Amino acid sequence: MLSFQQLQLIFQKYLDENQILETPSELYHPVNYILSLGGKRLRPVMLLMAYNLFCEDVEKALPAAFSVEIFHNFSLVHDDIMDQAPLRRGNPTVHEKYNVNTGILSGDVMLIYAYKYLMKVENQQRVVDLVNLFNQIAVEVCEGQQYDMNFEEQHDVSIPEYLKMISLKTAALLAGAMKMGALIANASEQDAQRVYDFGKNVGIAFQLQDDILDTFGDPQKFGKRVGGDIIQNKKTYLVLRAMELADIPTKTKLNNLLSGYTQNEDLKVKEVTEIFDMLNIQYEAERIKEDHLEKAYEALSEIDVPKENKLVLRGLADRLMKREV
Amino acid sequence: MLSFQQLQLIFQKYLDENQILETPSELYHPVNYILSLGGKRLRPVMLLMAYNLFCEDVEKALPAAFSVEIFHNFSLVHDDIMDQAPLRRGNPTVHEKYNVNTGILSGDVMLIYAYKYLMKVENQQRVVDLVNLFNQIAVEVCEGQQYDMNFEEQHDVSIPEYLKMISLKTAALLAGAMKMGALIANASEQDAQRVYDFGKNVGIAFQLQDDILDTFGDPQKFGKRVGGDIIQNKKTYLVLRAMELADIPTKTKLNNLLSGYTQNEDLKVKEVTEIFDMLNIQYEAERIKEDHLEKAYEALSEIDVPKENKLVLRGLADRLMKREV
Repeated sequence: MLSFQQLQLIFQKYLDENQILETPSELYHPVNYILSLGGKRLRPVMLLMAYNLFCEDVEKALPAAFSVEIFHNFSLVHDDIMDQAPLRRGNPTVHEKYNVNTGILSGDVMLIYAYKYLMKVENQQRVVDLVNLFNQIAVEVCEGQQYDMNFEEQHDVSIPEYLKMISLKTAALLAGAMKMGALIANASEQDAQRVYDFGKNVGIAFQLQDDILDTFGDPQKFGKRVGGDIIQNKKTYLVLRAMELADIPTKTKLNNLLSGYTQNEDLKVKEVTEIFDMLNIQYEAERIKEDHLEKAYEALSEIDVPKENKLVLRGLADRLMKREV
Repeated sequence: MLSFQQLQLIFQKYLDENQILETPSELYHPVNYILSLGGKRLRPVMLLMAYNLFCEDVEKALPAAFSVEIFHNFSLVHDDIMDQAPLRRGNPTVHEKYNVNTGILSGDVMLIYAYKYLMKVENQQRVVDLVNLFNQIAVEVCEGQQYDMNFEEQHDVSIPEYLKMISLKTAALLAGAMKMGALIANASEQDAQRVYDFGKNVGIAFQLQDDILDTFGDPQKFGKRVGGDIIQNKKTYLVLRAMELADIPTKTKLNNLLSGYTQNEDLKVKEVTEIFDMLNIQYEAERIKEDHLEKAYEALSEIDVPKENKLVLRGLADRLMKREV
C-alpha cells in the first residue's frame, strides 16, 4: 500500500495534467487558479487511500479523486464569497482576485465539472452508486454550511447541534470521498460502510482538533495566529462546552467577551482562555475527540483487508491529528 | 399524444407533490419559493413532449422534467444575483427576499437536487447517458452566461458570437431537455439527435423572437414595456445587425444612443427604433429566425414517429413564436 505522500504526488500529477483549458477563459481561469493554490489534497488522497486498501491500481480512482477536489474547491469559492474572506491559502480568494459574479459562476461550473469527472470512472457498474453517494455528500455539505451560517445568529447552539453541523460541513465529504474509493475498488457494501464510518469519525475528530489547536496550539507549528476563533466570536466546541459548564457569573462574562469586537484582542484571547482553563475545557474537548477517534479505529479494525494496510491508515489518522501531514 | 396544456397540468401536479421539505428550512424555503413562482414550465414540458413523441406513459419522464426545471430555476437564482435583478416573474428575486448568501447557497443545493431527480429516472440503462448529457448542457448554460457577461464589456460583438451565446445560454437547455425525453423513451441515437436539433433551432428562434418583440411587439400582448432592451443598451441581434448595416454617421449615432443612460427613455427608444426601421432590421431578424425555424422543422420531419405527433410539435413551435403558449 502506498503512503499518503506517494499518493499526494500521484494526485498532484493528475491535477497538473487536467487543467481545464476551455473557453471562455473568464470562466475557467478562476477554476485553474483556485485548484493551483495547493493545500494538502486531503480528501482526494484519502479517497485514493481507501481505494488502495482494497486494490493496487490507484490510477483507476484518480478521476473520482479529482472530482472530490473540484467539489471541495467549489465549496471554498462560494463559502469565501459568503464569508467575505479576502485570503485563501495566503492568496487572494477568487472573488477578490476577479469579482463576486465570477466567483459565483466559476464555482457553479466547478460543481458541474465534479460530476463530469465522476462520470469518467471506468467502473461503469458502480457509476450510478457513485453519483447517488456524491449527491448525498454534496447536499450535506450545503446543509452544513447553512447550519454554520444559522449559528452566527442563533444564541443557544447545543453541542449535539454543533456536532451535527461539523459532521455535515466537514466530515461528510471526507467520509463520502473514502466510501467512493471503496466502491470503485468493488469493496463489499459492509466494508464500504466501515470505510465511511472511519472517515466520518476522523473528520469530526479533525475539526474538534482544529478547535483545540486554534486556542491551545503552538503558533509556530500550527501556522496560524492563536485565538483566531475567539477574536471572531466563533461558536466552537470549546465555547459551547464552556457555556454548559460555567456558573452564571462566568457565563455572563464569557457572553460579554464573545459579543462584539474589541480593540484589545490579545486581552480578549487571554481572558477567554483563562475561563477555558478554569473549566478544564481542553481536556473536555480532547476527550470527545478521542471518543470519535476510537469509533474510527473500531470501524477500521472491522474492514476485511490485510492488517498492514489498516495500520497505514491508522498511522495517518494519528499524524493528521498532530498536523504532521 | 398529449397537448402542451395537458402536459403542463401533469407536470404542475408533480411539482406540487415534490416540494423539498428538508431541513434546515433556511436552505430549502427559497428553493420552494422560486419553484412556486410559476412560468410556462417550457423546458420540462418540452421534455415530456419529446418523450411523448415516442411513448405514452409520460409519468416515467417526470423526474427528469423536474430535474430540468430545478436546474433552470437554479440558473435564474444565480443569474439574478449577478444581474442584481430585483424582480422575477413579478415577485422579489431570491436574493432580494432573503439575501445574497442564501441565494448562492440555495442555488447550489438546487443544482445538486437537479442531479438527484435525474437519478430517479427508472430507465437505469439510460441514466449514465442522461447524466453525461445533463453535464454537457449545464456547462453550456454557464458558458453562455459568461459570454453574455463578457459582451457587456466587449465593444465589437459579432453576430456569430451572439448566436453562439444564445445557443449556449438559452437553446442548449431546451434542446438538451428534449433529447433527455427522447433518451428516456429509448429513441434511437439518430432520432434523439433530431429531437435535439429541433429543440436547439426552436430555442435560437425563440430568443431572436424575444429580441424582435422587445422592440416591435405589441405591449398589450407581450406583457412587457416595449424597448426595455434598448433602454438597457443590450447588444441584441437587432443592434448587432444594425451596426453591420449602418453607414458611419448612423453607426456613430447608434453608438452614442446606446452608451450610457438617458433621462428621456421614450425618446431614446424612438430614435433607436427609427434607425432599425431605416435599416429594415425587423425583416432581417425575422429572416434569420425563419432560417432557424426551417432547420427545426426539417429535423422534426426526419424523426421516425407518426406524422400526427410531429404536427403537434410543429403547431406548438408556431404558437411559441406568437407567444400564444
